[in-house]
Amino acid sequence: MRQIFLIGIGAGDPQHLTLQAIEAMQAVDVFFFLDKREETHDLIAARQALFQRHARPDAQAMVLNDPPRAQSPNYHQDVQHWHEQRAERLEEALMTSLSESGVGALLVWGEPSIYDSAMRLMRQIEARGQCAIQTQVIPGISSIQALAAAFAEPLNRIGEPIHITTGRALKAGFPADLDAVVVMLDGECSFTHVMQPEMEIFWGAYLGTPDQLLIQGPVMQVADEIITTRQQARARHGWIMDTYLLRRPLRLKA
Amino acid sequence: MRQIFLIGIGAGDPQHLTLQAIEAMQAVDVFFFLDKREETHDLIAARQALFQRHARPDAQAMVLNDPPRAQSPNYHQDVQHWHEQRAERLEEALMTSLSESGVGALLVWGEPSIYDSAMRLMRQIEARGQCAIQTQVIPGISSIQALAAAFAEPLNRIGEPIHITTGRALKAGFPADLDAVVVMLDGECSFTHVMQPEMEIFWGAYLGTPDQLLIQGPVMQVADEIITTRQQARARHGWIMDTYLLRRPLRLKA
Repeated sequence: MRQIFLIGIGAGDPQHLTLQAIEAMQAVDVFFFLDKREETHDLIAARQALFQRHARPDAQAMVLNDPPRAQSPNYHQDVQHWHEQRAERLEEALMTSLSESGVGALLVWGEPSIYDSAMRLMRQIEARGQCAIQTQVIPGISSIQALAAAFAEPLNRIGEPIHITTGRALKAGFPADLDAVVVMLDGECSFTHVMQPEMEIFWGAYLGTPDQLLIQGPVMQVADEIITTRQQARARHGWIMDTYLLRRPLRLKA
Repeated sequence: MRQIFLIGIGAGDPQHLTLQAIEAMQAVDVFFFLDKREETHDLIAARQALFQRHARPDAQAMVLNDPPRAQSPNYHQDVQHWHEQRAERLEEALMTSLSESGVGALLVWGEPSIYDSAMRLMRQIEARGQCAIQTQVIPGISSIQALAAAFAEPLNRIGEPIHITTGRALKAGFPADLDAVVVMLDGECSFTHVMQPEMEIFWGAYLGTPDQLLIQGPVMQVADEIITTRQQARARHGWIMDTYLLRRPLRLKA
């Protein structure tokens, strides 16, 4: 049975790597890199640097082109279809490039259990029944942990829940029962749809990297600065990954 | 100005330590250990082992006894009072044991930004104005990441938010707008107050350690097993730290 490590490699700082991740990387025969889009070459280069530094000298690297993702009105169906195509491609790569007793790995930005599809991808391959695999997950530092660290700001106030959601979901409204949300995967500054006086934002991009950007303040006052900074940085780098904590004064007591 | 590192040391596995955490530990002159309760001697020993392994040979360790925490009906007031007392004790220790240009550290289990009081403690010391400090946070692997890794189970389904809360809050009811909650700091199996048919639970204790316990299944079927396992383990070890993911079939689409 092929063994597959899903290794969380942190938010962008090579020093986010854990000893467990390094130990796992040493055991890997073949690393599979899922190349998402043209503009993420910076990220691929950063992952390659981790590979160069921590993989065994005889380890192989295999780059797989990700299938394009449709953008139809049915988000769930699009994502599912995209996952199926990815599963087929990775399954084929595992069967052709990794021996039956071999150890493979996917390096996952951030934390594999938070808004990442690698675990589902392995489940789909298992469910297809063509390629027997055993999956082991190595946790990593997520961008929201890097955000909190950069601002030295806890994600929760005393007794408060921590609610992590997507830009897409936030756009539909700030959750009525909550006073704070952590937002990931927001391509369009969705906070502008829900911002109100008294709300504050802690915004970060390229977290953990030398290009890290941080903006903090009353969201009504700093929204324009974030929008402009984000546009300029995206144009400069060709891509951007940002995340933020948006909150109002604590009304609800746990 | 004294520099203080708040270093996330992971959920219990010494291999959870990041390269960044190790680098920070090498810079530390004095480690301050906040000794919480009699029964956590296992945890203190584990932290001491990290200190022995990664601190400089000339680094000092200082153990501070935590003040007792009141258990009155006013939870918020109790916590605040307890934090003030802790701040006073730590401030005194910093001023007497660390030179003005020295580097101190607190080793924090899990992730400093998630249900941990160390950042607030440093803010309180800053606000008191007696002891100038500069705080730097080093993220770490939290128990919920160790939980997800142990089960190879993502914390969110596609598009779903991740909601991290306390046993105390869960007891008041499963959040109406959500289909999944991650629960920490639950001393009394609060899931038994909200469990329903079709809900499943992924429960873990002593995550990342050789004593790790894992139970997964329909919560109505495994609740008794969790309660019994938890009681027995707690009696055996003198303490327990557990966390879980509780969810129902996905009804709400993001």
